[in-house]
Amino acid sequence: MIAYQRDTHTGIGLVSRQQMSWTTPLPLEGGGSLAHYTLAYETYGTLNAERSNAILLLHALSGDAHAAGRHSPNDRKPGWWDEMVGPGRAFDTDRYFLICSNIIGGCQGSTGPSSRNPATGRPYAAEFPVLTIGDMVRAQARLVDALGIEQLFAVAGGSMGGFQALEWATAMPERVRSVIVIASSARSATQTIAWNSIGRRAIMSDPRWRCGDYYGHEPPTDGLAVARMIGHVTYLSEESLENRFSRRLQHNTERAFSLESEFAVESYLEYQGDTFNARFDANSYLYITKAMDYWDLPGRYGSLEAAMERSNADFLLISFDSDWLYPPSESEAIAKALHRNGRYAEHHVLHSEAGHDSFLVDFAAQTPLITNFLNRQEISMERAVAEQPTGLGRHWSDL
Amino acid sequence: MIAYQRDTHTGIGLVSRQQMSWTTPLPLEGGGSLAHYTLAYETYGTLNAERSNAILLLHALSGDAHAAGRHSPNDRKPGWWDEMVGPGRAFDTDRYFLICSNIIGGCQGSTGPSSRNPATGRPYAAEFPVLTIGDMVRAQARLVDALGIEQLFAVAGGSMGGFQALEWATAMPERVRSVIVIASSARSATQTIAWNSIGRRAIMSDPRWRCGDYYGHEPPTDGLAVARMIGHVTYLSEESLENRFSRRLQHNTERAFSLESEFAVESYLEYQGDTFNARFDANSYLYITKAMDYWDLPGRYGSLEAAMERSNADFLLISFDSDWLYPPSESEAIAKALHRNGRYAEHHVLHSEAGHDSFLVDFAAQTPLITNFLNRQEISMERAVAEQPTGLGRHWSDL
Repeated sequence: MIAYQRDTHTGIGLVSRQQMSWTTPLPLEGGGSLAHYTLAYETYGTLNAERSNAILLLHALSGDAHAAGRHSPNDRKPGWWDEMVGPGRAFDTDRYFLICSNIIGGCQGSTGPSSRNPATGRPYAAEFPVLTIGDMVRAQARLVDALGIEQLFAVAGGSMGGFQALEWATAMPERVRSVIVIASSARSATQTIAWNSIGRRAIMSDPRWRCGDYYGHEPPTDGLAVARMIGHVTYLSEESLENRFSRRLQHNTERAFSLESEFAVESYLEYQGDTFNARFDANSYLYITKAMDYWDLPGRYGSLEAAMERSNADFLLISFDSDWLYPPSESEAIAKALHRNGRYAEHHVLHSEAGHDSFLVDFAAQTPLITNFLNRQEISMERAVAEQPTGLGRHWSDL
Repeated sequence: MIAYQRDTHTGIGLVSRQQMSWTTPLPLEGGGSLAHYTLAYETYGTLNAERSNAILLLHALSGDAHAAGRHSPNDRKPGWWDEMVGPGRAFDTDRYFLICSNIIGGCQGSTGPSSRNPATGRPYAAEFPVLTIGDMVRAQARLVDALGIEQLFAVAGGSMGGFQALEWATAMPERVRSVIVIASSARSATQTIAWNSIGRRAIMSDPRWRCGDYYGHEPPTDGLAVARMIGHVTYLSEESLENRFSRRLQHNTERAFSLESEFAVESYLEYQGDTFNARFDANSYLYITKAMDYWDLPGRYGSLEAAMERSNADFLLISFDSDWLYPPSESEAIAKALHRNGRYAEHHVLHSEAGHDSFLVDFAAQTPLITNFLNRQEISMERAVAEQPTGLGRHWSDL
């Protein structure tokens, strides 16, 4: 650890991004290691004296460490899960110490392909090693170590954040008390690989990609825009697209009879592609989607049941009926594998029109499920502590 | 008409592509007209003396006039609907005279953006007018005229071929006795527009597209490949992708930890993109998908019910439960609109794993439905002829 800077911030209002770096090489699943790396993260709330109230929040493909609050009073928008994090919210900052960690491979303050390669002094670009979700999580484990936390009260994430939560639970089961997995899956399905792969093809065939070596030049904005547009359609349900845009034209009442884009849904997707370019690095998109494609817990452990047997945690699984990218059947399979192992797992299928994006927008329905689950976990933890000295705690309370 | 060449061919074995051209300008929905145009088509079977047994087959986005048979004994594959067309098949060449017509805007022997613009002597490229499904069908009507057919016994098509069949039925109701619409819809849904639009964006941002003016240069093969790959995923069901490819790697047993494509599903999609480039023109892809996006019968006539009221034909609608691009609900809406108008309409939802592509591969289930429907139409036509002189035909058979 070469730098550990912890900012104070006023409530959940203003927050600061923090960064921590390590010089001990991180061994990687694909062989070799990452010589040194930095992780961006944010924290909200206060770690208790027992260091037992820490919850690690894990973000999706295009997310970052900024889950809640604002970096400046002028910020147009707060963090990506702001409505879920704060005093009295699902992840209650009056009770829990929340850590939101970015990932290696990314481009939001953590080491990734756009970072300086110490071996050459130039950006890694395509020399950056191909990572796995496991590598990302082992990088985060050092952050949790450095914050002095032995066991996390919970790990929680949606989409690829759910991959990381599942990885934490199965690779380091002793460090995770409970797991919240939302709109996610234990493996990338064939169709998910297909979509990610077409996005990568779009980026890598943009001549400005230059085999990844575009830093200091014009980046492959067309390729990344197309990749993002594909992704965006998969994040929304047919119903939500229909309700938001239908066949409405953006500027005219009559068809233009031109090849240019003119439907409202086209303008919306173009906008998504453009704004994504302003905040995301195309190479990071390649590396992160590749790590997602490699995600396969059943493949690694022989079966989903064998994978879930590794964890001793209690699980809350939430899925959305309109999510066709990570449909409820994926969460149900995880719940069943946990049940077959005698583990505690609740799976709630929420009705929502918003498709996969529901986990980022449907807060009202998710909040009571998370609050109840975390309350249950606290009670069970208190009970376990009460039982420890006498071994009779459970019997007393059962009388 | 400047050329009308009718080849004879031996049974349904060997067939020849035919072409017909017109010099009378074709007025277009977007204004202006197409000065002159050629249509490619094929015919199978024999037109009867009453000219009452003609069925017009209409193809999908990437289809062509070559529905059945082989152009040469060495052809690797027959036409795209070969298993449906021939003696004793769904479209029985012993009984019907089948015409499969290509579309204007295409690139398979009909006038499209790659054709010579008579005004400049160079290919139209982006000077080609933006068309509608209505324009395509009015161009086909001249072919049906030239073949001496006043009323078609049936029009039949899947996917965009279904759009054309519905256009025939509603724009020229007097010319259509019965309609077979498979895996199709009365309008392009928002999500369909989204996918088409991203495909166009991929083509138009390929620098080799050169604003459409790439003829004589390298064409935008990367853009067209990405567009086709997107389309292909929408044509298949999640289940069929899972069953065919799962998470299998193409060449290795171990992950390569490289950014290159390595999953079998990736190789398959790359192959689809490459082979499509060998047979399709990128500009045609732009024009045809734009025409598809404009497809909106309810919008044109105020409601789907008002649209379907225009047709006097009997309808056979077939959809597939795994088709998420044109789901059964779209066909059911058409059937209901016909029923509300007191029209005859059967809608069959077939179980199939193949997704939207089912109409091109699941022949066994479609054949009896089409055979029965066409038999029913023949009986009703004979009855109508028998009724004509006395007006009592129906009563006799009811006794």
